[in-house]
Amino acid sequence: MGNEGFYVALGLKAWNAQIDRADKIFGGLSSEEILREVAPGRNRLLYLWGHLTAVHDAMLPLLSLGGRLHPEFDVAFVSNPDKSQADIPSYEQVRRAWNAVNAELRKGFERMPWSDWVQRHSAVSEEDFAKDASRNRFAILLSRTNHLSYHLGQAVLGLK
Amino acid sequence: MGNEGFYVALGLKAWNAQIDRADKIFGGLSSEEILREVAPGRNRLLYLWGHLTAVHDAMLPLLSLGGRLHPEFDVAFVSNPDKSQADIPSYEQVRRAWNAVNAELRKGFERMPWSDWVQRHSAVSEEDFAKDASRNRFAILLSRTNHLSYHLGQAVLGLK
Repeated sequence: MGNEGFYVALGLKAWNAQIDRADKIFGGLSSEEILREVAPGRNRLLYLWGHLTAVHDAMLPLLSLGGRLHPEFDVAFVSNPDKSQADIPSYEQVRRAWNAVNAELRKGFERMPWSDWVQRHSAVSEEDFAKDASRNRFAILLSRTNHLSYHLGQAVLGLK
Repeated sequence: MGNEGFYVALGLKAWNAQIDRADKIFGGLSSEEILREVAPGRNRLLYLWGHLTAVHDAMLPLLSLGGRLHPEFDVAFVSNPDKSQADIPSYEQVRRAWNAVNAELRKGFERMPWSDWVQRHSAVSEEDFAKDASRNRFAILLSRTNHLSYHLGQAVLGLK
């Protein structure tokens, strides 16, 4: 595999480091703490965690690793802002979904041959991919790792 | 170069995307706005920008691209918390340093042969690198991109 697989391994290591960090930040909160806003009038920690779960869930079809586990999270955590929906998944439901989704991604990452990482992701057509080969699966991994970091930076502000 | 250089290009694209985002967030603020806290009692935007500048400046020697341009930023923005130092660089000084440091990094990235990205970074000894080859320059690029995203997530909370 030469260095090619090595780059993928480094990308996955960075991803795993941020997942571990998220586990530590969100996993140890009480059911009151998870309802704290990260700043006055801003998103609650529960919303951020659900949002991250939904975005990671959508990576499954995007990377051709399988179907979504929790498409119903989008209404609560992606297409609508926090505090706009009367009924959103509970802390326990988000925790279970977060763990299930990231475990499914991990399994998929382990199965994926190195060379597949530079293949197109499923949201880009073959035609568009022929014009811009950077719209591939590795780019999704990097951008979702940054997306996770971005919201973790916010989440820590909601911890006391 | 096969796909190896392609992975580096994807890593650099992700870096540049976050740098552009930072330019937009910090670059257009007034001299009052830059002094806003991201949340009550938390870091001011100026501190975050100076902090990112100092951390990027330290990447120059870390990636063997040259000496630091602004080592004096560390006292103001790294080794001490915000609002603890009487005299810190001004908005204009931070802006100039931010631009200079990132331009210098860009030049260095352009000069660096693809294969150098998997070489050790300067903060790890040859002995330790022999034990863990993942402590290389590409890993630094990914981790600093995530660091930037992390603080940008906080910075947007300080915008109105």
